[in-house]
Amino acid sequence: MLNKTQHLFDDATRVVAGDSRWQGRTSPDYWAFVGPFGGATAATILRALVEHPQRAGDPLSLTVNYCAPIAEGDFDLDVRLVKANRSSQHWCVELSQGGADVSTLATAVFAERRPSWSQQQVTIPQAEPFDQIKRYPDVAASWTRQYDFRFIEGYTDLRGGGRARPASAFSKLWIGDRVPRKIDCLSLMAMSDAFFARIFHARGELVPFGTVSLTTYFHADADDLAGEDITRVLAVADARIFHKSYGDQFGELWSPSGRLLATTTQIAYFKA
Amino acid sequence: MLNKTQHLFDDATRVVAGDSRWQGRTSPDYWAFVGPFGGATAATILRALVEHPQRAGDPLSLTVNYCAPIAEGDFDLDVRLVKANRSSQHWCVELSQGGADVSTLATAVFAERRPSWSQQQVTIPQAEPFDQIKRYPDVAASWTRQYDFRFIEGYTDLRGGGRARPASAFSKLWIGDRVPRKIDCLSLMAMSDAFFARIFHARGELVPFGTVSLTTYFHADADDLAGEDITRVLAVADARIFHKSYGDQFGELWSPSGRLLATTTQIAYFKA
Repeated sequence: MLNKTQHLFDDATRVVAGDSRWQGRTSPDYWAFVGPFGGATAATILRALVEHPQRAGDPLSLTVNYCAPIAEGDFDLDVRLVKANRSSQHWCVELSQGGADVSTLATAVFAERRPSWSQQQVTIPQAEPFDQIKRYPDVAASWTRQYDFRFIEGYTDLRGGGRARPASAFSKLWIGDRVPRKIDCLSLMAMSDAFFARIFHARGELVPFGTVSLTTYFHADADDLAGEDITRVLAVADARIFHKSYGDQFGELWSPSGRLLATTTQIAYFKA
Repeated sequence: MLNKTQHLFDDATRVVAGDSRWQGRTSPDYWAFVGPFGGATAATILRALVEHPQRAGDPLSLTVNYCAPIAEGDFDLDVRLVKANRSSQHWCVELSQGGADVSTLATAVFAERRPSWSQQQVTIPQAEPFDQIKRYPDVAASWTRQYDFRFIEGYTDLRGGGRARPASAFSKLWIGDRVPRKIDCLSLMAMSDAFFARIFHARGELVPFGTVSLTTYFHADADDLAGEDITRVLAVADARIFHKSYGDQFGELWSPSGRLLATTTQIAYFKA
């Protein structure tokens, strides 16, 4: 049931409950160049787990392997609880369309997070306030128009014709939903894939690109996120290497209050 | 068939070919506190894929989710090629014992790595030569005795009684097999889990600990590794956060020549 007052993100990542088989549908609002925005796909998979009747605890890690492009339209999610322990669960999810091969393969860990010694070894990077920075101009892919990107460092004009010499791939920016939405584990998952490709920054131009495998760790549970009550994160990302058609990315998502909410890494294909 | 001249690591990660079902066996030489060294388990899973008749290309990423302890003895590996594309493959592996629940769940991507624009954004950390640094003394877990750890930074006496204040979790060290063995993707995989737990460094003491999910990306293919022809790596690792019973780790494995071979991250349970 699409609720008209519902946020586009919640519509885009909507799933219909099954037992082991769930259904979802790609959204034209979160479309990338040759398929849905990978962050929306990852968030949809996470939503099927969060809403699953057997789910216990909060997401701790999600790895998504993008095996093949997803076509516009309906898809099935084959959701399997592989192993449940006293305080953690291991899940496997396969996304397919029309009975064809798996196009996305994911594994997730959920955990009931118990109080412990708590220590943040890093501190939030310095950043000008969100309101003092201009919004990144719209680019072609529809998914980017669902976000409000405000670059503090690493602003790159992607309409440019490349650079004479490779530049830093580092970015520091605020990311929020264009229509503000309270940050939860689903939007954190999507935002962990909402960085522009590192190679676009390094080369100053768009090149054929696709994330192959994405892993995000959650360092805040639902209670922690409720306590933060935020609609945007400070996000940093960088790359270490581009070699033989693949490059990496690693990033952090921070609450404005200085709490590290999630860390993420991915390896991606490029043609350059 | 165990060849007496074979390296212990190759014996420990040996697999017997099946079609979709392979067999392996835990090794007392690579034993941790309550089960096999996670790096040996990960390397065994990778070996089953590398030796699989349908395998094409080199490992690009491996994610291993440790669902439950593995008991001493035989185990089965259920190996499934989920999707094959023109130049990449997506695999899923489930490790179980005696028909019981899955105890390790892994996904992997293999790729035939084509020439491309190549750019390393980072440079190897400075380090004194291996030969000028003392070997880390033996500790209880048998797996650690299969390695030669030489700390440049972050040496921590794990027999200590903890610290008054949390310390840095950063380590920089040389890691090689105790009996030198040429670095290949299998030993890189194992070494990506061969860092001591970050919380041991931060707290200066041993606490109950277990890796929950480990992801390693390979930035060098078999040809690149053959060209390096090395028996040790310069390894760095750090943590960003310990919170509600889970903490992270991220690390890099470098060839002495200055080439970034692999990057790795994990999330781990601790009790403290």
